[in-house]
Amino acid sequence: MRKLSLFIATSLDGYIAKPNDDLSFLKLVEKDGEDYGYSEFTANIDTIILGRKTYDFVLKEIGSSHYDNGQRDVYVITRTERPKIGRTTFYTGNLTELVQQLKSESGLNIYCDGGAEIINELLQHDLIDELIISIIPVLVGNGTRLFKDSRPEQELEFMSAKSFDTGLIQLYYKRKR
Amino acid sequence: MRKLSLFIATSLDGYIAKPNDDLSFLKLVEKDGEDYGYSEFTANIDTIILGRKTYDFVLKEIGSSHYDNGQRDVYVITRTERPKIGRTTFYTGNLTELVQQLKSESGLNIYCDGGAEIINELLQHDLIDELIISIIPVLVGNGTRLFKDSRPEQELEFMSAKSFDTGLIQLYYKRKR
Repeated sequence: MRKLSLFIATSLDGYIAKPNDDLSFLKLVEKDGEDYGYSEFTANIDTIILGRKTYDFVLKEIGSSHYDNGQRDVYVITRTERPKIGRTTFYTGNLTELVQQLKSESGLNIYCDGGAEIINELLQHDLIDELIISIIPVLVGNGTRLFKDSRPEQELEFMSAKSFDTGLIQLYYKRKR
Repeated sequence: MRKLSLFIATSLDGYIAKPNDDLSFLKLVEKDGEDYGYSEFTANIDTIILGRKTYDFVLKEIGSSHYDNGQRDVYVITRTERPKIGRTTFYTGNLTELVQQLKSESGLNIYCDGGAEIINELLQHDLIDELIISIIPVLVGNGTRLFKDSRPEQELEFMSAKSFDTGLIQLYYKRKR
């Protein structure tokens, strides 16, 4: 069955962004030619799920070609109906049902590209199959937490860790069945 | 100069305890003969700083011999004056002044044994020199967070990572000067 994977960077103190969507701490580990396995990871996915706020943020910061490029099915989870743009669907239904439907279809893996609200809703319903978490060597002190309070307990299987000379360490866990 | 070190275990989602001081998830990585470097670490410390709640908790769960054994100087940070017990001092003064005083004296390293309140107060004042964080392969979902909101940003130097066959991974960072 297709897996739903998280591939995300966090500060050591557990924030994926500083206040006001400030991602400047990611620059601490920027290095020419080093993508921390992102290309390899995305080569195995054909579907992206993400929250509407994250979608809008990326559109503003990077441009619509990042998601709306016709290369993958993109599901933007939103409360507001909008017409489909190419392979980008604005999904207003039940998130669990969407994921169960996608997992039952054939295809490559599914990538949850954030943000924290969608990640935590997926964790609430035990829908994430693997977590690839890159820890940036910084305490940012405040911001948007990767993990919000009040989720169910979930045991994980530690698969591997890979450290990089920039000080980033990437941890790979699978859901324990 | 003497270092102040943190040596602590957390769930992947950043909790050092579940609600009601429940530490049962630590059992997930219990293994005969494996102390995850604790003896080696404590061999280089002669002074412990900890919060009063943590002290009381350990007294109740393990007994007074854990701290009040005459082997090390212990500083319990509290608001309530109490007479010294052997080498255990109940310290009601300014935490920063205590740490600066201890660091200026000669001796082995200083170990902050928690809890979250003291750790975060030390981080507020940039007094922790190294962090040794053991990540347990579980999302506990709720509880006491290792890192509270509203601390200053602090860059770290990643030193090393060590993984164990129980799935625990231990990360070692130094403060960047």
